[in-house]
Amino acid sequence: MTQLDFLFRPRSIALIGAAHSEEKLGGVILKNLLKFRGRVYPVNPNYTELMGLKAYPSVRDIPESIDLAIIMRPASEVPEILKGLKDKAKCAIIESSGFAEIGEVELQNEVKIIGRGIGVRILGPNCMGIYNPYQRLDTFFLPYERLKRPKRGNVAVVSQSGAILSCLLGAVRESNTGISKAIGYGNAIDIDESDLYEYLANDKHTDVVISYIESLGNGRKFIEKAKMLSEKKSLRILKSGKGLSGQAAAYSHTGRLAGRYEVFHSILKQFEIQEAKDFDELIDATKALSFQGQGSRVKGQERISNRVCIITNGGGSGVLAADECMRQGLEVAKLPEDKAEKLRQIFPHFYGINNPLDLTAQVRDEDYISALNELKDNYDGFLIVALPNVLGITERLAELIRDFKGKIKKPIVFHITHGGISRKLTALLEKIGIPVYPSPERAVRGLRAILNF
Amino acid sequence: MTQLDFLFRPRSIALIGAAHSEEKLGGVILKNLLKFRGRVYPVNPNYTELMGLKAYPSVRDIPESIDLAIIMRPASEVPEILKGLKDKAKCAIIESSGFAEIGEVELQNEVKIIGRGIGVRILGPNCMGIYNPYQRLDTFFLPYERLKRPKRGNVAVVSQSGAILSCLLGAVRESNTGISKAIGYGNAIDIDESDLYEYLANDKHTDVVISYIESLGNGRKFIEKAKMLSEKKSLRILKSGKGLSGQAAAYSHTGRLAGRYEVFHSILKQFEIQEAKDFDELIDATKALSFQGQGSRVKGQERISNRVCIITNGGGSGVLAADECMRQGLEVAKLPEDKAEKLRQIFPHFYGINNPLDLTAQVRDEDYISALNELKDNYDGFLIVALPNVLGITERLAELIRDFKGKIKKPIVFHITHGGISRKLTALLEKIGIPVYPSPERAVRGLRAILNF
Repeated sequence: MTQLDFLFRPRSIALIGAAHSEEKLGGVILKNLLKFRGRVYPVNPNYTELMGLKAYPSVRDIPESIDLAIIMRPASEVPEILKGLKDKAKCAIIESSGFAEIGEVELQNEVKIIGRGIGVRILGPNCMGIYNPYQRLDTFFLPYERLKRPKRGNVAVVSQSGAILSCLLGAVRESNTGISKAIGYGNAIDIDESDLYEYLANDKHTDVVISYIESLGNGRKFIEKAKMLSEKKSLRILKSGKGLSGQAAAYSHTGRLAGRYEVFHSILKQFEIQEAKDFDELIDATKALSFQGQGSRVKGQERISNRVCIITNGGGSGVLAADECMRQGLEVAKLPEDKAEKLRQIFPHFYGINNPLDLTAQVRDEDYISALNELKDNYDGFLIVALPNVLGITERLAELIRDFKGKIKKPIVFHITHGGISRKLTALLEKIGIPVYPSPERAVRGLRAILNF
Repeated sequence: MTQLDFLFRPRSIALIGAAHSEEKLGGVILKNLLKFRGRVYPVNPNYTELMGLKAYPSVRDIPESIDLAIIMRPASEVPEILKGLKDKAKCAIIESSGFAEIGEVELQNEVKIIGRGIGVRILGPNCMGIYNPYQRLDTFFLPYERLKRPKRGNVAVVSQSGAILSCLLGAVRESNTGISKAIGYGNAIDIDESDLYEYLANDKHTDVVISYIESLGNGRKFIEKAKMLSEKKSLRILKSGKGLSGQAAAYSHTGRLAGRYEVFHSILKQFEIQEAKDFDELIDATKALSFQGQGSRVKGQERISNRVCIITNGGGSGVLAADECMRQGLEVAKLPEDKAEKLRQIFPHFYGINNPLDLTAQVRDEDYISALNELKDNYDGFLIVALPNVLGITERLAELIRDFKGKIKKPIVFHITHGGISRKLTALLEKIGIPVYPSPERAVRGLRAILNF
């Protein structure tokens, strides 16, 4: 058991700054902690009981050593509170703000030094803390009604910013995937992205890690741990503060210098650590990788090749997908002549026997399967466009794909546009682990994330 | 009245190939035409009545000259049908496929020559035709249940591909804007994108035109009309067939060569005709331009400048927005020193008084208005990030924005993430004409479309 296990899987928690009502942040956190199955000790000298739990005047009064202390008190009180955790707590999350991000650099340094001195590992300050649905652990100061938590899943979210953490969780939930761990680590005076990568590399519930970074502490350590994590799981980094104005904003937000983005970018490239260009690209990649599951990245895995087959019932959508493949470095390779000949025999003469394979508006569900069966050995991944506006596309398509899917281990992604039976068909496909995207280009980016060549 | 008026605002329509049931495409079209307020004449020699309307054995038997003939019969019959329209119809939509797109180039040429000879203007072949909600005119062969039509609005959609047309209509509907005219023009043997641009330039219901192009007929005419349209309305072009594989696909789909994309791209740039990079960028721009309405592009309008102010309650989201501004050529210019001083007086000391202006998780609705009031004269456009996960953001924000909006003519766009009161707040803001986006970057692209510098 590493010390970070006490952070992610504590048996006992003290909440310093617990409050009686959800109008206070300390009350929101306490409410969220009520779901936790271990022992919770609210600390507040003004109460003997809070939300049905016995309250304690101070940490010292708690009748046991605790694994995790959560601090939600004004910044000026934090040094004294922290000293009180000596020999009493293994880890602490300082959620309070009011440190380097508003110029209080000395106060932050003082807290850092105290933490080191007493051997307590610290997450924060100025952070959201941890959501670990596998332990029903939720230290966020956001009420559930304001941020619905995603279900359990295989995506770990590591975010320096609490705001972006909540945006990412909202988007993960929207894209029908789930969370293994979510961490808002804020000003990172102790536990930083690198420590979290190391922990997540060995976390059995995590297949995919997405990491939002504004500024780095130790660059060398970051590269080492990111590289190590990338070899075991799918890692995607979103770096902000790319331009001058963004860098200034990042500084005022976390008090760490963002550094020159160009340098960061070229180092990531050199070490083959994958980067997302923006929020949407990150979410689209996450969806595909999460659906792909464990196989999304296996240590020592041979690099998959990049030959893609597009099967569509809308000519234009196939062309847009082919354009995006080109931009993403995916090859829309010609059909092998023998296969093309075979397909010309199976299909009506007006189908477009090329890659993209155009099944036209006259398509029937089973045409996709006929095509996939013929071409399954010739390509590394398949993009299927099923515009549900025509009568030949039905919910049966999801069943057919489910039966076919067992036959090949290659990735399949779908583009389905809005309207018609779109919602139903999308739900059925995602239930069997096929990611669905609302535009051809986004579907290509999803496939690209899996092929990851 | 131009001849194209008979296409968009016919008084009488003949449907050649009308059918009795929606299992046939000719039945779907007839069903959609039942909503039309003018006269509709189904033509089918096997019936005396179809869907409650008197049916005619041939066009010749219809007791009047008609404005618009719609043809949905096998390609081989089309030349004879067309000859029968001489002196009987002003315009024709040939929806049937089976022409150049499957190699039947000669048949297509024959149809083209016949059309010219009899003076009937032709849309198509291999096309969806027209949706004009202001006339309740709907010639699509897609049933309503499969493609819900968007409401009336100010966006005209001009698409070579029927599939992309249906995708665009779905996306327009999803983004809460509306349609003035939608046209799927297919193989374009007569009426092409240029003719449609010319018509739409003078259409009072249209403020924004989006145009999906796979291949061009007459390049010179295209540039001339696109330029002319751009001076009167907001035009956004999405060109597909950008790479070699995309170009091959475009050829097999419409039978016209896509041409070298680089040439197309540089000519558009030279003539200041705006292009979207992909489907999503097109839709994001359309949303902003449509909400902006008439003012989105006024002839002879002075180019607006590009100074943007970002006001956020999430530091990280502000940084991502600033990064995207840089990529889009928008300047996140510093706050003027006097205004910064003023804001420091109004706001709590922990707010980040910069651009992006960080109102933190402690934000209250009215803070946005205080900031906008101070800064309204210093910037050309405003991007507001309102992450609805914190308690200080309420539905009142929409009311406050509505009251403020009257005071300035400058564009305001919102980024609101999923969750909390997101859906409600988004609906309220869009009702008062403020476009809302689900990521910071997409919001920036929306603002960029309006500033259009």
